[in-house]
Amino acid sequence: MKNDLGKIHIYTGNGKGKTTAAFGLALRALGAGYRVYVIQFMKGKNSSELKNLKSLPKITIKNFGSNILVSKKGQNKDKVFARQALNWANKIMVAGRCDVIVLDEIFLAVFFNLIPISEITKLIRNKPAGVELILTGRKANSEIIKLADYVTEMKEIKHPYQIGLAARKGIEY
Amino acid sequence: MKNDLGKIHIYTGNGKGKTTAAFGLALRALGAGYRVYVIQFMKGKNSSELKNLKSLPKITIKNFGSNILVSKKGQNKDKVFARQALNWANKIMVAGRCDVIVLDEIFLAVFFNLIPISEITKLIRNKPAGVELILTGRKANSEIIKLADYVTEMKEIKHPYQIGLAARKGIEY
Repeated sequence: MKNDLGKIHIYTGNGKGKTTAAFGLALRALGAGYRVYVIQFMKGKNSSELKNLKSLPKITIKNFGSNILVSKKGQNKDKVFARQALNWANKIMVAGRCDVIVLDEIFLAVFFNLIPISEITKLIRNKPAGVELILTGRKANSEIIKLADYVTEMKEIKHPYQIGLAARKGIEY
Repeated sequence: MKNDLGKIHIYTGNGKGKTTAAFGLALRALGAGYRVYVIQFMKGKNSSELKNLKSLPKITIKNFGSNILVSKKGQNKDKVFARQALNWANKIMVAGRCDVIVLDEIFLAVFFNLIPISEITKLIRNKPAGVELILTGRKANSEIIKLADYVTEMKEIKHPYQIGLAARKGIEY
């Protein structure tokens, strides 16, 4: 298959569907025969989509973090996790172990001061030409937006959190 | 499993990720053990994500339409397809054959005058309480937005169509 990959995508904004869109894209890339690597920042292993995605060939999903919400202070343990995720992403990309790489919630990790934004620009600089890179998370930095090819803002128009609905397994996580 | 489903989601806007977010949500719901039914308006069978999704248990995907772009005139054949999709959606929901139903690009079908908006309000009125309904497509109507629980607008900030990149298999479709 001709590999015409190499673009950079960003899914950001305060609305639903950033991670789900990235996983949907992973599913689509798998369907076309590409190797997909997903690295999740600040997330444990309990989201429902992972179960089926992991059962497919040619996809690897690695979580770095716990399910405990990080405070804005950015505790040391969280910084260690985020740093590990970043190093792993660089390693996988440079070693040519994937065609499509998803760095889920990387912008949230920047927002919580777990990694400096300069590390993302460095990662983009090191990206091999034929690798498609997908970055997600609220509050994507304008500096990174400039470097991206596709940028979509998921804008929350309406959400039942506003009326106090609790997160539901299979829908919200 | 306790079924706490029943909400209505809309993914709309001119940005990427509406269908991929809906498929990502389908994947998540499957992972939690729910039965998922996807009905695609105005779409043929060539998108890459379908291959793997279809291989999973508890999901059915049905396409109504061709891959030929419908003109704003709304030809008769396209109206027949859209009407079939709508009837099928009503039938599946009312028969209790799914927990989560995705009506992909239904708003585009309304925009192209293939179905009247009143048919969507009717469908929502007929929806069994425990069925989670996901509607996608550009130009969601404000009337339907009022009836929904979750509404996310995918806003295009940047897209390489602007610089003339052709759609790529595994990424765009």
